[in-house]
Amino acid sequence: MSVTIKDIAKAADVSLATVSRVLNGSGYVKETTREKVHDAIKQLHYTPSAIARSLSTNKTNTIGVIIPDINNPFFGEVIKGITQVADEHQLNIILCDTDDCKEKELKAIKLLREQRIEGILMTPTYGEEAHDSAYMSTLDNLGIPVILMDGHVKYANYSGVFIDHVQGAYDGVEALIHAGHEKIAIINGRLDSRPAKERFLGYKKALNKYAIPLHEQYIFNGEYDHERAYTMTKKILLLEDRPTAIFVSNNLSMLGCVKALNEQSLSIPDDMAILGFDKVDALNIIGMNISFINGPTTLMGKTGMNMLIESLEKQKDVHMRELKQITLLPELHLKGSEKKSV
Amino acid sequence: MSVTIKDIAKAADVSLATVSRVLNGSGYVKETTREKVHDAIKQLHYTPSAIARSLSTNKTNTIGVIIPDINNPFFGEVIKGITQVADEHQLNIILCDTDDCKEKELKAIKLLREQRIEGILMTPTYGEEAHDSAYMSTLDNLGIPVILMDGHVKYANYSGVFIDHVQGAYDGVEALIHAGHEKIAIINGRLDSRPAKERFLGYKKALNKYAIPLHEQYIFNGEYDHERAYTMTKKILLLEDRPTAIFVSNNLSMLGCVKALNEQSLSIPDDMAILGFDKVDALNIIGMNISFINGPTTLMGKTGMNMLIESLEKQKDVHMRELKQITLLPELHLKGSEKKSV
Repeated sequence: MSVTIKDIAKAADVSLATVSRVLNGSGYVKETTREKVHDAIKQLHYTPSAIARSLSTNKTNTIGVIIPDINNPFFGEVIKGITQVADEHQLNIILCDTDDCKEKELKAIKLLREQRIEGILMTPTYGEEAHDSAYMSTLDNLGIPVILMDGHVKYANYSGVFIDHVQGAYDGVEALIHAGHEKIAIINGRLDSRPAKERFLGYKKALNKYAIPLHEQYIFNGEYDHERAYTMTKKILLLEDRPTAIFVSNNLSMLGCVKALNEQSLSIPDDMAILGFDKVDALNIIGMNISFINGPTTLMGKTGMNMLIESLEKQKDVHMRELKQITLLPELHLKGSEKKSV
Repeated sequence: MSVTIKDIAKAADVSLATVSRVLNGSGYVKETTREKVHDAIKQLHYTPSAIARSLSTNKTNTIGVIIPDINNPFFGEVIKGITQVADEHQLNIILCDTDDCKEKELKAIKLLREQRIEGILMTPTYGEEAHDSAYMSTLDNLGIPVILMDGHVKYANYSGVFIDHVQGAYDGVEALIHAGHEKIAIINGRLDSRPAKERFLGYKKALNKYAIPLHEQYIFNGEYDHERAYTMTKKILLLEDRPTAIFVSNNLSMLGCVKALNEQSLSIPDDMAILGFDKVDALNIIGMNISFINGPTTLMGKTGMNMLIESLEKQKDVHMRELKQITLLPELHLKGSEKKSV
């Protein structure tokens, strides 16, 4: 059982009020009594309760972080960024993984609210249809700052840090076009999610800019997984007018695409040029040299956390709601796999 | 600002005591008054405070989880297992990442203790030298259940769930020997850590069992990273009496080993047989068919969390300390890359 100030009072043979005065450094306490209390604290390994303190100061120094998939390395890196800033500010983090499930997300918000966390950093579940009006009302009535990280929340404007997926995809597809490609297939993520939708838009904008017609048969709508991307890549390879390049619009799909190419012993980029959105660290390290557009993950975590801290501070001073949205531009890393063989 | 029962009392135009009676369902409250209070609660979107409740019930329903590296997919899977069980038991998780740094770990323990978490699930920092007597005293004096997950803590016996690294490595190396290998190099992880030390032991036991002499020049002591493994693999490839197989004793080192083989266009297993400890999901998915010994990650998370819940329940009843250690056996997955070309 954990030690309470009752135990301290008993061990030091003083009143509860005396222990409280010593702990708070308030009121007069005789020096010898103070020493007795300190000895008891040391002997019993007492730590002041942040919970008791939070009731008097109304501060828990705890932040809730809600993400859809902790096993996606993308979020691992985002969390690294968040914890770096949280550490500097002595803030604790309660992490909730929603498995990209709306019900789990609502439950997480409820639990966090009960823990009286001071603010929330979240990437909402991907699907827009999940964000109905009951959901929005839950978010709106939290009464604490909420900062979004790259999610889309329908019907509402929330402060947050976002990634310019359109520009990122545009830059990448433009690099494919500059390398000589015109037949460029795309494997989309879930098109009801902001990242997939915007990356698809960037793809279309780049084709349009260079007057390359959009071919329906080159467009494949996947999810965020490798299984579907594997099947789709096999379909792409069977197309009569086979594309010379594939834009794989998310990191989890990339693995399925590479698997399908490997199975048919096709080389990148000689047999097929490949461009990914978000890097796949493992493939990068082993030297596969897959060209990719990289969302600034750790930076997004840091920026989001800094925005939340700023919101917490502003909240104290004025009763106004400020909307602030920061957009980060992804970086294009050309590794040679965008090239067209002649 | 979050809503308090003062706001409820004001909105319903009743006393604090009345609101409290309604919330606790205790004492007599007139039906019309009760309705007024409930209307105010609904209107103001009030959620009962888990913190206030925790002071009266002495329960926070919150568990601390401390791990050394959230970016290692191994821990991503462990956390999935932990959260599955935590969800079922309506427990919250405060996750702390220590960057494998002793100071951060001590800070995390202190923060968690202040949050009055009910128990801790932890994988301590790898290095044994970190666990000096001051450190041990911090752990010993927490006064709440601590369950270790696969870590080594010197000088003390803690309950926990462990992986039989010795047997896992033994089984894997034996498979290499059965495939015809006698010249087997090993890339160790940090040898002051339990997993690396035990895997090395399993390697030695297997060689000994089959009367294969241990060659010093085949033993490479790395860390848990890909950079050093890359350099070491290049050294292995330059050895005069070159090994025919490499046992890469951790997942992060595997990427560096594969990179070095790829650079020299060496094929697995025709030019070099490869065995890993812990799978590398990405390489597995793209079809590299690397044979590996797999620590039961999600199962370890689930088992650890169940042990912690059990400890929390037992704690209520009796004042005794029970030591319980569960050891999980890793699985050997042979994918063909252990074979010896003839």
